[in-house]
Amino acid sequence: MNVAEALAAFDSVRSGDRMHELMTELFPICRSITGDGFRQSLGIVGKRIPLDVHEVPTGTQAFDWTVPKEWNIRDAYVADATGERLVDFRESNLHVVNYSVPVRARMPLQELLPHLNAIPEHRDWIPYRTSYYAPSWGFCLTQRQLDGLVEGEYEVVVDSTLEDGSLTYGECYLEGETDEEVLITCHGCHPSLANDNLSGVVLVAALAELLGPLERRYSYRLLFIPGTIGSITWLSRNEAVVPRVRHGLVAACVGDPGPLTYKRTRHGTATVDRAATHVVAHRGGQVRDFSPYGYDERQFNSPGFDMPVGCLSRTPHGEFPEYHTSADNLEFVRPEQLADSLAAYLEVLDILEGDRAYVNLSPKGEPQLGKRGLYPSMGGKRAEDEVLAMLWVLNQSDGDHTLLDVAERSGLSFGAIREAADKLLAGGLLSPVPQL
Amino acid sequence: MNVAEALAAFDSVRSGDRMHELMTELFPICRSITGDGFRQSLGIVGKRIPLDVHEVPTGTQAFDWTVPKEWNIRDAYVADATGERLVDFRESNLHVVNYSVPVRARMPLQELLPHLNAIPEHRDWIPYRTSYYAPSWGFCLTQRQLDGLVEGEYEVVVDSTLEDGSLTYGECYLEGETDEEVLITCHGCHPSLANDNLSGVVLVAALAELLGPLERRYSYRLLFIPGTIGSITWLSRNEAVVPRVRHGLVAACVGDPGPLTYKRTRHGTATVDRAATHVVAHRGGQVRDFSPYGYDERQFNSPGFDMPVGCLSRTPHGEFPEYHTSADNLEFVRPEQLADSLAAYLEVLDILEGDRAYVNLSPKGEPQLGKRGLYPSMGGKRAEDEVLAMLWVLNQSDGDHTLLDVAERSGLSFGAIREAADKLLAGGLLSPVPQL
Amino acid sequence: MNVAEALAAFDSVRSGDRMHELMTELFPICRSITGDGFRQSLGIVGKRIPLDVHEVPTGTQAFDWTVPKEWNIRDAYVADATGERLVDFRESNLHVVNYSVPVRARMPLQELLPHLNAIPEHRDWIPYRTSYYAPSWGFCLTQRQLDGLVEGEYEVVVDSTLEDGSLTYGECYLEGETDEEVLITCHGCHPSLANDNLSGVVLVAALAELLGPLERRYSYRLLFIPGTIGSITWLSRNEAVVPRVRHGLVAACVGDPGPLTYKRTRHGTATVDRAATHVVAHRGGQVRDFSPYGYDERQFNSPGFDMPVGCLSRTPHGEFPEYHTSADNLEFVRPEQLADSLAAYLEVLDILEGDRAYVNLSPKGEPQLGKRGLYPSMGGKRAEDEVLAMLWVLNQSDGDHTLLDVAERSGLSFGAIREAADKLLAGGLLSPVPQL
Repeated sequence: MNVAEALAAFDSVRSGDRMHELMTELFPICRSITGDGFRQSLGIVGKRIPLDVHEVPTGTQAFDWTVPKEWNIRDAYVADATGERLVDFRESNLHVVNYSVPVRARMPLQELLPHLNAIPEHRDWIPYRTSYYAPSWGFCLTQRQLDGLVEGEYEVVVDSTLEDGSLTYGECYLEGETDEEVLITCHGCHPSLANDNLSGVVLVAALAELLGPLERRYSYRLLFIPGTIGSITWLSRNEAVVPRVRHGLVAACVGDPGPLTYKRTRHGTATVDRAATHVVAHRGGQVRDFSPYGYDERQFNSPGFDMPVGCLSRTPHGEFPEYHTSADNLEFVRPEQLADSLAAYLEVLDILEGDRAYVNLSPKGEPQLGKRGLYPSMGGKRAEDEVLAMLWVLNQSDGDHTLLDVAERSGLSFGAIREAADKLLAGGLLSPVPQL
Repeated sequence: MNVAEALAAFDSVRSGDRMHELMTELFPICRSITGDGFRQSLGIVGKRIPLDVHEVPTGTQAFDWTVPKEWNIRDAYVADATGERLVDFRESNLHVVNYSVPVRARMPLQELLPHLNAIPEHRDWIPYRTSYYAPSWGFCLTQRQLDGLVEGEYEVVVDSTLEDGSLTYGECYLEGETDEEVLITCHGCHPSLANDNLSGVVLVAALAELLGPLERRYSYRLLFIPGTIGSITWLSRNEAVVPRVRHGLVAACVGDPGPLTYKRTRHGTATVDRAATHVVAHRGGQVRDFSPYGYDERQFNSPGFDMPVGCLSRTPHGEFPEYHTSADNLEFVRPEQLADSLAAYLEVLDILEGDRAYVNLSPKGEPQLGKRGLYPSMGGKRAEDEVLAMLWVLNQSDGDHTLLDVAERSGLSFGAIREAADKLLAGGLLSPVPQL
Repeated sequence: MNVAEALAAFDSVRSGDRMHELMTELFPICRSITGDGFRQSLGIVGKRIPLDVHEVPTGTQAFDWTVPKEWNIRDAYVADATGERLVDFRESNLHVVNYSVPVRARMPLQELLPHLNAIPEHRDWIPYRTSYYAPSWGFCLTQRQLDGLVEGEYEVVVDSTLEDGSLTYGECYLEGETDEEVLITCHGCHPSLANDNLSGVVLVAALAELLGPLERRYSYRLLFIPGTIGSITWLSRNEAVVPRVRHGLVAACVGDPGPLTYKRTRHGTATVDRAATHVVAHRGGQVRDFSPYGYDERQFNSPGFDMPVGCLSRTPHGEFPEYHTSADNLEFVRPEQLADSLAAYLEVLDILEGDRAYVNLSPKGEPQLGKRGLYPSMGGKRAEDEVLAMLWVLNQSDGDHTLLDVAERSGLSFGAIREAADKLLAGGLLSPVPQL
């Protein structure tokens, strides 16, 4: 079974449910760019797919960066004079600013306030904040909680550690017919946030499960990494791999209800750009040019690597109101949205795996399709489209145009064009050109 | 006299009437892809222009195709029990499915019905149907006729023959200064249908009449062929001619009241594409990209030939409601519409014949037009446009830009630019670059 | 101080006022393509900037043209039978058709009328007319004046001379680090008309004043010439300079209240096209393709020279109602509009002077900006834009992209991108590529 056949057999409901289940299991864990939360999450993913877990010690140099100290947290709260916890890490791990240094103090409200973050426009949402590289501490709470704080003395506890340890990431490598690679990555460093980016984590895990048993032209490398420092660290340890990466995608924000968004690579003309543009256009989504702002595609597209890695999302970061708040939760990300994204990823991979050129063996005039039984016996729009797809393939198959070229020019889907080519091949009218 | 001068002298009313007269003479004949109807039609056209008539025997191989048996028909009808003809070939040759095999039978209505075709949306129009390559028989009738049929026994007669014979086509070759050719073709295989495609037949005949006495840079080859099998058969017998064809146009549906439509060649960048696009744009028409669906341009643009042949129509096939019905008749196609199309064809040929580059002999700054009497004596918009055309020609005439280049860039018509070039040439300000 | 620093220190109010003052001084003078009015105007400009004044004798050949006789005028009027001056040159020099031959006659109204020009749509405006190359005379007057003329005898006097003399033009050359030149020209041949083109004259004079004391990569050549014959004459005497001109702009109609308009060079792809397009786009203006109609860019872009000279205006000639009428006056052209145009010119020159490519010295992944203090300490839109500009520069600085490339691709202004590059350079993250 190859990707095309897997796509034809794709079970959208089952895949969506399976991804959402995994997300539900991962959701409560307090992840960060280092620490046990990330490690524990990789352990859960690793129960589904073969996963190599790498530990990179604190202090390791990664180009211009240094692997930071490992952060872990047991508890955190703000309590009033009576000892009642008003802001409690045990209720939501978003309540503590991620990477907060340890603190254990009593202080009046005025001293506490600069350490508190809320969202005035969404009174019941907790914001998500981090402070990875500037040592500090803080809490996040709803505007309603904030408004309820009265003058007085508060007990403030962040029971965290920031110590030498390691940065953890997971890598799933699926060897294919060639050692040319497709790289698919997701950042898994956010705590209880569903779309950004447990959606990416569960989609990449599901891809690994689906691709595992298939015949694959390419080898696949699927990365579960913390954002920015993770991709930079991975790059610093895998420079030899970089030249083998032919196509790449960053999976982020793939579970929200918005349409698909593809963000091009730095050059904008890579094969993955064309494949993803084709898929997204046929699914009513949008395509955007590269910009050096976003997720780990920033690192893969830095001038020293210049890799053909795009980003395939639904609604891009920062453009949905729930972004980086407690409202980005398991209700916001639905199984059918995850399944739709997964199908789109499979369609892109189908093009990457299956695109090739053919030579029309009867190139002088059209061949007579009827005498070969290639004319649909019934009429109607579907039959017309089938004939049209065959005529396009025949007309363009001069050895210079791949099926994706034909799909792009004709306006028909890659799937329809590939199906037409398969029929013509079976009918003895085409000869395949070796794939590059 | 050259094409430019013929265009200046073009008599639109006379040309339109003459084409419509020819169409009126050809209209009643029952043509098909083979047979006496096509042969008789060529005889009529051949009274106006020099025409070589070719007969290609049944069974001749033409690439992937075989010349079919020749079809002829004397009579056909459906009669009721009283012998009254309810559907009668003598009233309209559209009543019989073209290429119907002979039949002579009596049958009840229920058995007859699958052989009957009508158009529910147009109750008084007879549809046009064919069955060239699947042996069968059938009738076409108005929905009103169909609704009038009552249960009972019917007499069904198709007095046709389908026997070894030949495929007939006509070729008019007009030798020019060079053996490089312009190929213009029309399919003449439809019975009593005016726009599709007697309009093409009479337009190509009129072109032959007009071009005959002119000085011509190119040789012209005008084909009157049956659709698909005709062009494929012609190609199979004329492979040596193909490389000499520099420009080509398929003339189809050139008599309806719609605006002009030009369909590009497979590459879309041929000189004929640019020439036709220019003419159509200045006449308020539309330009479409190539698709492997339509008329004989499909065959000329197959990858084994890849000829620079576009299609210049008014409303494309299938996009006017009268298409392939009895409503595509002599009232639908009017003389003035035919004349407008003919003028457009002449304008395209004028560009193909007359496009060339010049070198500005006074290239440093603008030359002083006034001292040469090249400034219009009167002001106004027309005079301004004349000056502007001269300035464009002077500015762009560095030997690299042809008059069509200048027309495209300036937005002015090829005619206005050529007129300006003629004036500047007469004024000693330009030197022609030899035509390629 | 370089252009970038001068731009940062640009005093809009002072510059606008200073230009308007000069325009006010020049406005009353009756200029033409030759004669004392032009000479006197150059004298006034020459009090502000170093100006070489050239005199080219009548009869000198300039390519296809000949320097005409010099025109001077002392007085002109139409008087009625009582001797009352009804149309009087002393009230406005627009009242006489520029280059009118001398006349001193008495004639009835009917004989006078063909020599009178007015504007029916603007009853109180005097039109501006010329007759440089066809010897004739005439008057321009308001429609209201024209309507007031009654039957009778009129005295007509044009006290002008048209004699051997010279054509005068001014040239200001500012030597730079290289002998590659930026050419900026303005036509100064119009009499009392403010936007067309005293605005150009005072803007170019202000540029000369500003550029004079600056460090300059390029040498600058600023021309004050009569239209058409002036640029042709200059070209005929400076063919050796032409190859050194790297960039050029024609300054015309730069004082009206409309948005900026940039007209491209003949090729449309020169560096000045990209620089001016960038500036105009960021200022809400419009860009137009080259056409061989307009100002002296026609001559510089003639095929024998083909120079990279565009035209940067506000509202183009003929597109504002006041064009070539007495309404194009000192009230129509305001200091703030002149200053806005001057700032745009400086921005274009800033790009021409300052555009260059850099190499990212930390190209593998993003460098850590925070540890270098390059992250803005405060948040907000402005800080985000600063970071974004730095990320764009880092991402694109592979040695192949200049700052203008980065500005174009990012949509950010050249100024913002250059500022980011300066910070990164100071931070040791960039290395400059030598300018071409």
